[in-house]
Amino acid sequence: VPELSVTASTGVYPVTIEAGLIGRLPDRLREIAGPSRVLVMGDSNTFPRFGRDLAEALGASSWAVPAGESSKSWEALEEGCRQCLEAGLDRGSTVVAIGGGVVGDLAGVIAALYLRGIRLVHVPTTLLAMVDSSIGGKAAIDLPQGKNLVGVFKPPEAVYIDPELLTDLPDREYRSGLAEVLKYSMIADEQLYDSLLANRQKMLEKDMDLLTDVVTRCCAIKAGVVTRDEKEKGERAILNYGHTFGHALEAATGYARLTHGEAIGVGMAVAADVGVAMGVTPAGVSASQAELLSAYGLPQSAPGLATVAETLALTSRDKKNRGGATPWVLLDRLGHATPGHSVDPEVLERAAGRALGSGEAG
Amino acid sequence: VPELSVTASTGVYPVTIEAGLIGRLPDRLREIAGPSRVLVMGDSNTFPRFGRDLAEALGASSWAVPAGESSKSWEALEEGCRQCLEAGLDRGSTVVAIGGGVVGDLAGVIAALYLRGIRLVHVPTTLLAMVDSSIGGKAAIDLPQGKNLVGVFKPPEAVYIDPELLTDLPDREYRSGLAEVLKYSMIADEQLYDSLLANRQKMLEKDMDLLTDVVTRCCAIKAGVVTRDEKEKGERAILNYGHTFGHALEAATGYARLTHGEAIGVGMAVAADVGVAMGVTPAGVSASQAELLSAYGLPQSAPGLATVAETLALTSRDKKNRGGATPWVLLDRLGHATPGHSVDPEVLERAAGRALGSGEAG
Repeated sequence: VPELSVTASTGVYPVTIEAGLIGRLPDRLREIAGPSRVLVMGDSNTFPRFGRDLAEALGASSWAVPAGESSKSWEALEEGCRQCLEAGLDRGSTVVAIGGGVVGDLAGVIAALYLRGIRLVHVPTTLLAMVDSSIGGKAAIDLPQGKNLVGVFKPPEAVYIDPELLTDLPDREYRSGLAEVLKYSMIADEQLYDSLLANRQKMLEKDMDLLTDVVTRCCAIKAGVVTRDEKEKGERAILNYGHTFGHALEAATGYARLTHGEAIGVGMAVAADVGVAMGVTPAGVSASQAELLSAYGLPQSAPGLATVAETLALTSRDKKNRGGATPWVLLDRLGHATPGHSVDPEVLERAAGRALGSGEAG
Repeated sequence: VPELSVTASTGVYPVTIEAGLIGRLPDRLREIAGPSRVLVMGDSNTFPRFGRDLAEALGASSWAVPAGESSKSWEALEEGCRQCLEAGLDRGSTVVAIGGGVVGDLAGVIAALYLRGIRLVHVPTTLLAMVDSSIGGKAAIDLPQGKNLVGVFKPPEAVYIDPELLTDLPDREYRSGLAEVLKYSMIADEQLYDSLLANRQKMLEKDMDLLTDVVTRCCAIKAGVVTRDEKEKGERAILNYGHTFGHALEAATGYARLTHGEAIGVGMAVAADVGVAMGVTPAGVSASQAELLSAYGLPQSAPGLATVAETLALTSRDKKNRGGATPWVLLDRLGHATPGHSVDPEVLERAAGRALGSGEAG
């Protein structure tokens, strides 16, 4: 069974990836929680499917939030702390987050703040949460002015990943997570790129052996990056490849027209376009990325969905932004990216124009 | 000029104690903040007196909350994050908290959460905040069910203490802070005990040289303790001497009848009483403490203010509580305390009865 480990400022935590792991979770969690109370937290999708049984097996308290980004709010944070109090959680207690990125984020902030911090275990149920948000300790809620503006670094005690939970994940959500998987291959793992291109059909059919291997590779990349650079002083920024434009596009379209993965697909295409124009990304690498995104049905443009001016204005409002400049992550070869690139505004405008314009987009 | 340093998990920060320091703060703060935006935060008492001038000198944004514990709320936290956004604070920005414990606590939580953490500088304006809450990184807001139930460890970049700010601190608030000063002498510094007893009049008249020396000694004790045990796994608990019963008494009396210092005075008396009954505290040490509390006009009992049953029930609801047992900090000699004592419930009842009963209290 693959077990990775992440070294955070607060200690080392394991990431276990195993098909069928969900059935063995009560025993694992009892070991972590000891005699203290546990709160199992899910959302209106995941709680009935996985959370309720787990809470019952553990004799734990439970709480389910409405599914969706709107649960990353002050109101949900306040309610979550109240739930912890009512469940009688003390400083030795554990919150188990079973769900996608929203549940993991909200649970992370709650577990960081309640009594100045209690234990947290992530059981991600979406591909996106498995390969991305459950590892690395970032947790946040949203403000009306932007996503993830209020949060903490809250490393978990453990991350338990069961790829079998993906079996009945809706197709559009699975593909949304695949965008992050493709991103990992582009920024850090040429072999993964080859495997994803060669095994497209098996990936889309969720072949469990392949999926477990791919998830493990992605988690290994993320675990390595966040171990070396927990607080994003440098290298960790490469994980934002495709996200500078992608996040802005999500915001410009009101988080309604595109999934996160679709926006990241467009963002990766724009970043490759920019990289080529800046002389950082070889044209062949950009073409390889286009081939991979196409193979997985991810969009590389969003014609007419937003204006260039608004979307670029939103890239510079990103919270990574400091003192005005928006640094870009660019590919310098297949399977390798570097952060911190200053990009000529005219290059940006042309690339954004190609992605958002009608007709000439590609 | 005395400068102490505290080693936190996030790095080392200085604590500077100097009469008249407030006038030199703009230069010091400019060094810390660099070119990034600053938000000066105070309350309705401290902002007009110290905050406004400082914000103007720095060209900083500013925000004042209503004075009082009610500002340690979800609403104030949310509003504070909105103020940071509106002031255009980015990841390199700094929040300067100028005020007592409430302002410091609220600013600490805001600075920890906004953009997952920006810089924080404490400029405490009360004796309590100077010797206690500004050092050690604890920050929290209150819930209806109890104080400080939601918070973080947020070590500041620096703590600037100007004892001259105490000159016009209201007398009752000054005496409230003195309770913590007396506590430091009892738990950690016999020489400070002697000095406080010998120099009572000068302390009450706020002799600036003596006050600066006393504040420095207290800060040195706190800096040492929190450096050795930031997250309160052991030694840091001794700082809660007198607080187990004191906090419960504050809660039982609705935070209205007693100042924090008055409640801690009673709590110290109860802890000494308990310590003697348990055979941990020599009777002479208890008598020495009684002499010191009397000299500074702090109460050692609260006859009729609360019932024994309710107050003791509240001690076991303290958030340090884990799995039922409430550990007590007890003096084992003058100038030395040890944490983690299990106390016989009958001993507690008798001690609480003496403190809360009418007639036999003392």
